[in-house]
Order: sequence, then structure tokens, then C-alpha cells
Amino acid sequence: MRPSGRSVRQLRDIRLEPGFAKYAEGSCMARFGHTQVLCTATIEEKVPLFLKKSGTGWITAEYGMLPRSTQTRTDREAARGKQTGRTQEIQRLIGRSLRAVIDLKELGERQIKIDCDVIQADGGTRTTAITGAYVALHQALQGMVQKDLLKQLPLIDQVAAVSCGLYEGRPVLDLDYAEDSTAEADANFVLTGRGGIVEIQATAEQTPFHESDFHALLELAREGVDSLIKLQRKALGI
Amino acid sequence: MRPSGRSVRQLRDIRLEPGFAKYAEGSCMARFGHTQVLCTATIEEKVPLFLKKSGTGWITAEYGMLPRSTQTRTDREAARGKQTGRTQEIQRLIGRSLRAVIDLKELGERQIKIDCDVIQADGGTRTTAITGAYVALHQALQGMVQKDLLKQLPLIDQVAAVSCGLYEGRPVLDLDYAEDSTAEADANFVLTGRGGIVEIQATAEQTPFHESDFHALLELAREGVDSLIKLQRKALGI
Amino acid sequence: MRPSGRSVRQLRDIRLEPGFAKYAEGSCMARFGHTQVLCTATIEEKVPLFLKKSGTGWITAEYGMLPRSTQTRTDREAARGKQTGRTQEIQRLIGRSLRAVIDLKELGERQIKIDCDVIQADGGTRTTAITGAYVALHQALQGMVQKDLLKQLPLIDQVAAVSCGLYEGRPVLDLDYAEDSTAEADANFVLTGRGGIVEIQATAEQTPFHESDFHALLELAREGVDSLIKLQRKALGI
Amino acid sequence: MRPSGRSVRQLRDIRLEPGFAKYAEGSCMARFGHTQVLCTATIEEKVPLFLKKSGTGWITAEYGMLPRSTQTRTDREAARGKQTGRTQEIQRLIGRSLRAVIDLKELGERQIKIDCDVIQADGGTRTTAITGAYVALHQALQGMVQKDLLKQLPLIDQVAAVSCGLYEGRPVLDLDYAEDSTAEADANFVLTGRGGIVEIQATAEQTPFHESDFHALLELAREGVDSLIKLQRKALGI
Amino acid sequence: MRPSGRSVRQLRDIRLEPGFAKYAEGSCMARFGHTQVLCTATIEEKVPLFLKKSGTGWITAEYGMLPRSTQTRTDREAARGKQTGRTQEIQRLIGRSLRAVIDLKELGERQIKIDCDVIQADGGTRTTAITGAYVALHQALQGMVQKDLLKQLPLIDQVAAVSCGLYEGRPVLDLDYAEDSTAEADANFVLTGRGGIVEIQATAEQTPFHESDFHALLELAREGVDSLIKLQRKALGI
Amino acid sequence: MRPSGRSVRQLRDIRLEPGFAKYAEGSCMARFGHTQVLCTATIEEKVPLFLKKSGTGWITAEYGMLPRSTQTRTDREAARGKQTGRTQEIQRLIGRSLRAVIDLKELGERQIKIDCDVIQADGGTRTTAITGAYVALHQALQGMVQKDLLKQLPLIDQVAAVSCGLYEGRPVLDLDYAEDSTAEADANFVLTGRGGIVEIQATAEQTPFHESDFHALLELAREGVDSLIKLQRKALGI
Repeated sequence: MRPSGRSVRQLRDIRLEPGFAKYAEGSCMARFGHTQVLCTATIEEKVPLFLKKSGTGWITAEYGMLPRSTQTRTDREAARGKQTGRTQEIQRLIGRSLRAVIDLKELGERQIKIDCDVIQADGGTRTTAITGAYVALHQALQGMVQKDLLKQLPLIDQVAAVSCGLYEGRPVLDLDYAEDSTAEADANFVLTGRGGIVEIQATAEQTPFHESDFHALLELAREGVDSLIKLQRKALGI
Repeated sequence: MRPSGRSVRQLRDIRLEPGFAKYAEGSCMARFGHTQVLCTATIEEKVPLFLKKSGTGWITAEYGMLPRSTQTRTDREAARGKQTGRTQEIQRLIGRSLRAVIDLKELGERQIKIDCDVIQADGGTRTTAITGAYVALHQALQGMVQKDLLKQLPLIDQVAAVSCGLYEGRPVLDLDYAEDSTAEADANFVLTGRGGIVEIQATAEQTPFHESDFHALLELAREGVDSLIKLQRKALGI
Repeated sequence: MRPSGRSVRQLRDIRLEPGFAKYAEGSCMARFGHTQVLCTATIEEKVPLFLKKSGTGWITAEYGMLPRSTQTRTDREAARGKQTGRTQEIQRLIGRSLRAVIDLKELGERQIKIDCDVIQADGGTRTTAITGAYVALHQALQGMVQKDLLKQLPLIDQVAAVSCGLYEGRPVLDLDYAEDSTAEADANFVLTGRGGIVEIQATAEQTPFHESDFHALLELAREGVDSLIKLQRKALGI
Repeated sequence: MRPSGRSVRQLRDIRLEPGFAKYAEGSCMARFGHTQVLCTATIEEKVPLFLKKSGTGWITAEYGMLPRSTQTRTDREAARGKQTGRTQEIQRLIGRSLRAVIDLKELGERQIKIDCDVIQADGGTRTTAITGAYVALHQALQGMVQKDLLKQLPLIDQVAAVSCGLYEGRPVLDLDYAEDSTAEADANFVLTGRGGIVEIQATAEQTPFHESDFHALLELAREGVDSLIKLQRKALGI
Repeated sequence: MRPSGRSVRQLRDIRLEPGFAKYAEGSCMARFGHTQVLCTATIEEKVPLFLKKSGTGWITAEYGMLPRSTQTRTDREAARGKQTGRTQEIQRLIGRSLRAVIDLKELGERQIKIDCDVIQADGGTRTTAITGAYVALHQALQGMVQKDLLKQLPLIDQVAAVSCGLYEGRPVLDLDYAEDSTAEADANFVLTGRGGIVEIQATAEQTPFHESDFHALLELAREGVDSLIKLQRKALGI
Repeated sequence: MRPSGRSVRQLRDIRLEPGFAKYAEGSCMARFGHTQVLCTATIEEKVPLFLKKSGTGWITAEYGMLPRSTQTRTDREAARGKQTGRTQEIQRLIGRSLRAVIDLKELGERQIKIDCDVIQADGGTRTTAITGAYVALHQALQGMVQKDLLKQLPLIDQVAAVSCGLYEGRPVLDLDYAEDSTAEADANFVLTGRGGIVEIQATAEQTPFHESDFHALLELAREGVDSLIKLQRKALGI
């Protein structure tokens, strides 16, 4: 029995709300149960140094948590003067995940900055962020097409993410904090609409786990991401 | 004529939503028109070094803006590795404002940390923050009374804040961004429920202004804060 | 009775010594009683990025305290690796105050950097700094006129500053440290030679104060600044 | 054909040299072909704050690259004043990998700090680091047993790591830099002597990859790690 | 001919003014010609961690330059967020120089912090700082004897410093900026009243220099320091 | 009797291994007994700002220690976020020493970056670094001549360094850690092949020392450096 009463292959209540932010070119408030992440996409007409005059664009991401998004208060990174290793890991992951489904040449020499800010954290903030970030990115690109800045969407595929884990010995989908904090293994899967693998990060929390368990987690993740992909399409009206 | 169509002495649509954050001891989503600030109060059973063994408590505040809360993206302070002077000014102001209406002796040797995070910025974020922070603080203290950690609320008075300014030569109440960015003078008033002055910060943006103008701004602020104080009471059900 | 024996409306012994620094384009050692602030003005033939090709100049300020300017030693900000919020607040205030009395268009695309370094701190360092900084600025601009870099002084008005406060329930002018550290309210007024208000910062230290008290402080400040303006003129020989 | 002429399932020339460092409690110079990582283990009789009085120990790791370990010089992190996100990711991974094969309770309230410094970088520095770090750790623990600080080795299993990738469409084992920089997918596998999974990190560099490819990579990794585990045993003489 | 018209073995006009700072336990405004350094000594009743419970005291020093102490403005280290290598070299030198003439055991478990702040820089700021710092230290220790915190001065010897250099091929004493900036070699000598060597730092600016030149510089330094030692005694009235 | 059994004028076993690093333009693993420093030279086709369009080149150096190069672990500077004063002193010294024997005009508008990384530290790391850095520099310049980037080696002289000290009252050459940590005085000499002085840094550790001792140290250093110069030539095959 999971703490939330969900079945092992049941996602939390997912809500994706595009256009949440008034000023951003694209945005999405993404909710996986109590986890809430505000994702925004900002278009900048300049690229990082290493892409100057390459005709190629870039997508980068930043991630942060509000200090009291968590059960006990987390120190504010801006006050500490640096981002933690965890924050850097996550924001690099978000950037890679989105770059895997876009044609950066077609985007042209522009950079899209994705900001994922955790308003409330009940486990799975990075997978919520990736899933919402895709929606924000899509919306921003649609706006560029409407303004004739792009002829068509430079997207190759859709991308979404979900975590799975071994909880009390059983593979379960979409861990919440109560599960995540005691799971024996924790894996994040970033998969595309067409079934490609973008990123797998699987970690044994205490003791190494078996390959068969890993396969079970991957199977759960496929199901979960398929649902998320549909919810993204519904939210975007595509 | 104001850009928003409001009369000179009209506040924006104000909404104060206590309990917005699931995990914080006290919280309030404060909205002044399109400006949205999430305020949380965290109770810590330890005080800063200078108050150790004094029997006296403390209130401190931190302030931040989501990068895309603004019309054009603002760099993330955590990524830049330091807080701007503006951020530090504002968080010091919020802390002072709340300390002015609490009996720190009665609070006992505890610290309350207020976090004010701007979700959307359309002018007046610091006054929105102070007004919402009072609600979050009040709620956190109520919780302590309910748990018998405090015999009664250690609050002496209520506090709220509003900005006024000279816009096209006329004193107006509660500037939004369109007004703020072109106002000749800008003043923030932090006042109490009983009419006391906690803080006044008045600044000429381009040319020095007259004392009579200042008096007009103060009068507008009084009216505005009186309304805010009532809205706080209504939100808190007191 | 004030600790210093002064009457409530009496300034400390004020001394403004232009040309104190051998190398700076403009300078003033400003003394308000035991408080000593060395102010220098440096002219740079380039402006911050946001003013490039605008034809408009800029004035910015930095503030610092020698570690043993204070009664007990204050940590050196350069050693701590960052400036405190208080320092940033003060240097922003000095910059705004001077920009309010200069025509930045007439200055042309140049930046003047004001450095205010506290040699000794007995209260009122920010008001001493502003009063001395005006003298240093004036001297630097005179030098530019003499070298035909400017046709005339681009100054619109004079500016000076003084603090007032409620000390043992009574409004008093120009607080020294003994008063400042126990005052119930503390207000800094930046006013111009022609009577305009540049900045007001009034803060209740413990309990909110009454509007009538505020008016009394403002009246004292007017008198004080009038005297300071005259002393600036005398020091500059204008 | 691989640039190095190796077969697809061939490791580079592996050399593990325990005791390389004169002063460290445990050490290993680990070489995977031209990649060289010096791993040291330092025993400290104190633990991080969160483990004080828990009776439990900890293993943590730090990672760095000599500036000219790379083909073109990489900026020195100490000079830049901060570690990159990549460095933080890698050092967190090394720590987790070692903690997965040790009984921290049995270690007692001590911390072992692992330093992995890249002397030369030709791809696979993180997997070389993990493989060598295990040897350094083992040696340090043996020393503790010899000094009667521990009754027996608190190790549960052995751990080693290898990278695999899709190079020109084919799964290959143990990528060198020439392969790594152009591979379509890159995966790091941290596996134990008994076949458990400690960590999998698989990343599509440009386009998402298929599940069947992932399985091929995992199979290659199993073979590679089995060889590495034997080489560790040989180096340690166990 | 030297730019200043001095003879090769002539010091600049030296002035040592003890008690310059109102609040410090010891202080000295030290002037070597136009170079002015304010030195203060602060007594703290605690020592650095490595001396806790050793019964032994410590002397440490910090050094800084006002931004416009120099001919062209030097960036403020507090604003840049770190001290330059030069600053750190100099403050370490000042600390070592003073520790060489004090009996740290006799001082007891206390730390004396020396602050040397350059008000005006015309060459030789580090030697001016050391010479003035000794006076400030002496004064602070005298105060401790007067308050019966020490039975007697824990000083073993006096210390002073001077720079010499090869200017247009000739050894000269006490370089000013005009000489320093073009000298072929530059050497700082820290010597004691009894003739002991505390520190020698000799540097070829462009081309290596001969041993005979070095001896000539040392001889000049001896004469110079002998004069400085007398001036310190005169200033201190000992 | 020295701890190592060496005679007072005996160097440790010196080994200079050019070409140690696979990727650098020049490199040398320098060993003075157990002290090991890896020196690399990187050629960059751009110069610091102050040399732009001057036609003149530059040499700069960076220095670091592996955390466990020392007997007890030293904190990693990259993790602490800043370089110590000692590190900065040493890297400045290395840069100055090399610049003294090169014709920067002949080098042309290029910068050579020297990295000296201490693999093992048994005293004398800075002198080992300078001696090895010269070899790395020489090798890099030879490579430029071979590629016709330079017509001839722009070197004026050779440079090497050695430390001497007063150990148990006697002057000894080339201190190891056991001596260095208890020596009464410690001096580093940077001398050229033709006998010129580049830098002398002599420091009394506890009590000031006599001029005659200093002369004895200098004489020892001359002998030591003469041997090092020959060993450099042998290693370089010149």
C-alpha cells in the first residue's frame, strides 16, 4: 500500500496550466499532486559565446526552490551566494532534455532560457519541471511562429519525465516525498513522445538493486510518460 | 488619467490569501493587481548569535524575485552568486517593519523567518510583501498560541504598506509599473493600524519635490493603509 | 539634555575641507563633530553600459568604513568578500542624492565616481558623506570647466543631508552615536539649497511614531541643511 | 573501426597502482589508457553535522582536473572561485557509489574523504575515478583493520565503473575522448562485484536512442566491470 | 638626480603621529612624504582556533587602500568581492614583521589585530605601514600595562621597514612612486632596532641584478631603519 | 645532523622530467626528493588587456596543491571558493621569476600560462616549481621555434630556485619539510645561470637573524642553483 493510496502504476493528479505567467513568452504551472513548479520560457536574440556566428540556437535552463517550498525551510541559494550541486545537476538535466527534441539549427541564432521555480515540493520536482518546461517551450515557439519569426515549430518530438522507484521492495510510479525519502532505489526517466530515451538516471539509495527491478521501473516509466505526453497535448490544444 | 483607469486615490484590486503554502507555519499569497508576492513565515527555535540567552526573539526577512516575474527577464541572484543592493534594502525594510509591531520579549527566544518571493511584478512589490508578510506572521503566531507555545499573540499593532508617487504632476496612490517607471517621485509608507509611522522612504526620481507634495502623498498613504489593514483583518477573520 | 550638551537644534562642529586628497579630481574631508568622512570624486571618460551612446553622463558612489573607525572593530568588507546590505543602501543613497542636483545631459557621456570612506564614525556617517560628496563633486566639475571640458557647471542646485531623531522623546538635530544608538526614531533628510526634497528616510527604531513628531523632525532638518548649504558655499568659496 | 583500433568490447589498457601517494591513508593511481586519475582516501575522526552522535560514518568525495590535463587548457576552478556543475555532479556520483558498498554503521563515527584528481584526461575520468577510488578506500580501511581501529573491513561488496556509448551507430565499451566527443549516446554504469546496479546515467547527446541500444550498452558494461573488479582484486592482492 | 631632489641616502619627511584614531587601543598615522597610512591596533580577548588553550597570543594584520589614494582610481576590493594577491602578500608581511618582535607567550591568549589603511599612496606603502604599525602596537600594549592586563611590555625589540632600489643604475633609499615605477630593482627590508633581519624581499623588475648591488641596498636600508627606529622612539616618548 | 642525513650543502635527489604531460606545449615533472610538482606551459595567442596592441608578450603562472599532497589533508581551494594568500604569493613569484629571463618583446603578442601543481609536498614546493617551470617554458619555446612561430628562443638566461634556512643554528641547503617546519629562518633564492639575482625572500620564523647568517644562506643558494642549472640543461639536452 502506497502512503497516498495510489496503485503502483498510478500517476498523481497532474495539472499543466500553460500561460500562467503574464510576461513570459511561454509558461506553464505544472502540478504533480502537491508538487508545483512554475516553468517559463524567455527568448533572447543572442547566443552563448561558443555559438556566435554559427547560425545555431541554444536552450539553457535554471532551477530554483522557494525557501519554504519544502517541509522544513531550505536556505535561499541567493543568500548563501551559490547554487548547490543538486541544483546544478537538475538545471543541466532540464536543458539537455529539451535540447534533445528541438532542431537548434532551425531555431536560428537565438537562446531560449527556461526557468523552473519550485513553488511547492512534494517529490519529483525535476520530472515535474521537465514536463512543464516542454509546455512552456512549445508555447514560446508557437508565439514565434505566429510572429513569423519562425516558419514552423522547430520541434522534432515531445519530451516528458517521470520518476519511479523501489518502495518497500515494489516498483512504483511517480514517487511523492513520503515514498522518495524511504525508497530503496530512485530513477528518473526522460522519454520522448515516440518512445526514445533522452536520459536515464537510476540510483541505489542504500543497497545495489537488480537488473530485473530496473526493467520494471523502465516499463512503469513508459506508461507514465505516455500519459504525460497526452496531457501536454491536451494542455497545449494540439 | 492613470494608465489603469483608476482614480488617484484608488488601490488596485487587493487579494490576501492566508494559508496558501502547504508546509509553512504561516503564509499569504498577496496580490496588488498583477503584482503577486508569496509570503511565508517559518518558526525556528533558535535566535541569531547576538540574542543568545537574552530571552528575546527576532524576526528577519528575505526577499527574491522569480527571474521571469518581470517584463523582461531579470538575472537569477542565486546564479549570479549575490543579492543586489535593491534586494538587500527591501528585505531589511520588511524585517524592520514587522519588528515594529511585535513584542520580541513575549515572542521568547525564537526567530521567525519571513520569505517574500515575487511571483509576478507589476510595481509595488515591497509594499505588497510587507502587507502580505504581516498576514503570514499573524497566522504563524496564531498557530503557536493554538499549540500553547505562546499564551497570547505578542502583536502590538497591525502593519501594512503602500506606495504613492507623483505621476504627471499629481499625487496618486498605489503605483503600478507603468506609473512607477515614469513617476517624478516615489514614496513608500509603512504605517500601523493605529496610525503610527514605521517607515517612510521618499525619493525624487529626477528633480527634488515640494513639501506640499510630500504631505499629499502621506495623506493618500493613510487612506490606502487603512483599507489594507481592514483587508488583512478580513483575510485573517479577526 | 543631550549627551554632548548641544541644544536640540544645534549642529555639531562642522568642517568641510575641499582638496584634502592629493590625487583626486575633487575631494573633501567632511567632519560632523568626531565623524570624519573622506569624499573623493573621480572623473572617468566612460559610462555604464546602459548609457553607451546616450550622450548622457552618470554619477555613482561607493561607501566604506575603515575597520577601526568604530568604537569596536567592524570586520573589513574586503576580507569578508562582500559588502553588507547597510553599505549598499548607503552608497545607493549617495548616488541618488547627487544625481538629483546635476544635469546629466550637460555632463556629457562621462561617469563621476564618488568614494566616501569613513575614517571615524560617531553617528551620521551617511549624511556627512552626502554633504562632503557634494563639495568633492563641485570641485571636480570646477576643474572640468577650467580645463574647458565643460562650458559651465552642470549643477542645478546644491544638496546636503542631516539626520534628526527622537531622543528621550524630543526631536533633536544631527544625532551623534550616543544619541543614535538609543533614539526612538531616526530620520535622514536629503534636501537641496532651494528647499526641495531629494530623499527622506524615516524609521521607527522600536515603536511607531506620530506624524506630528515627523513634522518636527523635518523642520529641524530644514534648519540644519540651510546651515550646511552655507558651509558648503563657504568651503568652496562660492 | 574505433579510433584506437580496439574491438567494440575491449577495455583500454587498465593500470591500478595502490599506495601511489606517500602521505594518504589509502591511494591509487588509476589509468584507463591515457586517462590518469590520482585517488586518495583520508580518514577523519569526525563526521558532518547531520551525523553527529549517530554512531554512523560517512564517505564524501571531491573531484578536480589539473588545468592542463586536457587537450586545451581548462580554467582552474580555484582561480575562478567556484566549481562547475560538472565537477559537482561527478563528485556527488563518486561519493554515492562508494557509500553503496560500505556499511556506514560498522565504519563508526568517522568520515573518509576521497579526492580524485585528474592528471590526464582522455575520456572516462569519472569512471576511472570511481574504479580507483574503491582501491584507495579499500587500502585505507585495511590500514584501519591493521591498527585495530576496525575489527574487520566494513565493505559489503566491490564497486567499479565504466562508460559505454553509441559510436557511429554501434555500442562500444570504455569510450576514449575521440569517441566520447562524437558519440550519439553516452552512458556511465556503476556496478558491483556481485552484479548489483549502483548507478546508471545514460544520456542522448543529440537524438534520443532506442531501448534495445540501451540494453546492448548495459551488457557491454557488465563485461567491462567484471574485468575491472578482477583488476582491482589483483591490484589489492585480495 | 632623484625626482624629489633628495640625496641617494635621504629618507623622505617622516611623520609618526600616535593616537590619531579616537577609538582604537593603539594607533598611528604614519607619513613617509606624501604616503599616508593609518595604522590601528585592536585588542581582542580571543585567539584563532589553532591557539585555543595554548596560553599563547597572536598578532594578525589587514591592509587596504582607499580607492582614490592612488594617482588613478584603484577598484575597491570590497566591491570586487576579493582582496588582490598583492594585498594578501602585504598583510601577511605586516603580521610576520610584528610577531618577530613580540613574546606571544607573554602577551597571553589574546589577539591583536592591526589595520593598515592607505589614505594616500606615493610609494612605499608597505614599509610605511610596518613602521607605523609598530607604533600602534606599542601604544596598545602600553595601554594594557597601564590597565594591569600585562605586567610589562611583551616586546623583545623594535621593528621598522624601508624600501631601497636601483634607480637609474644607482642604489637609493626610500623610493617614492616616481622612482618605484621605473626602478630596475626594488627591495623591502624589515629590520629590528638591534640590527636583526626580520624579512628581506628583493625583486628584479626587469633584469636580474648583481650581488654587489644587493649589498649596497642592504647598507642603505640599515641607515634608513636606524633613523626610523629613532623617530618611533621619539613619537612614543620612550 | 640533518633529519635526512644529508650534508649541510647537499641538495636532495633532483629529477627533472620534461615532456611528462601528453597535451601541454611544454611540461616538466620536477622532483626535489619527495616533493613533486607537475609544471606545464600553455601557449595562448592573446595577451592580457594591458598589453593589447603592444607587440609584447606575457608569462603568468598559477599554483595549486592536490589536497592530499600534504601530510594531513589540505582543503581544496576550488571547494573553498578562493585561493589562499600563500597560493597567490607563490604564483606571483613564479610568474616574476620567469619573466626575468625572457625577452617579452621577442615572444610577441602571446601569453604563456604556467601551471604548477603540487602532487606531493615535502618542503620547497615553490622552488621546485620555479626550477621545473623553467624547463616547461623552455620546451614550449623550443616547440615554437620548430614550428617557425619564433625565429629563435627569446630566452636571455636560465633561472632556478632553491630554499636555504637556519636549522638548529646552522645554514643548510634545500630544506625538506622536517627542517622547514622547525627552521629559525627560511630563505628562497631565485637566481639565474649567469649569477644574477631575480628574487630573494628571507624570513625570520621566530627571532630576527644576523646578516652573517644571511650571507651564508646566499652562498649555499649559489652552489645549489648552479647544480640545478646544470640539471636543467641536462634534462633539456642543451
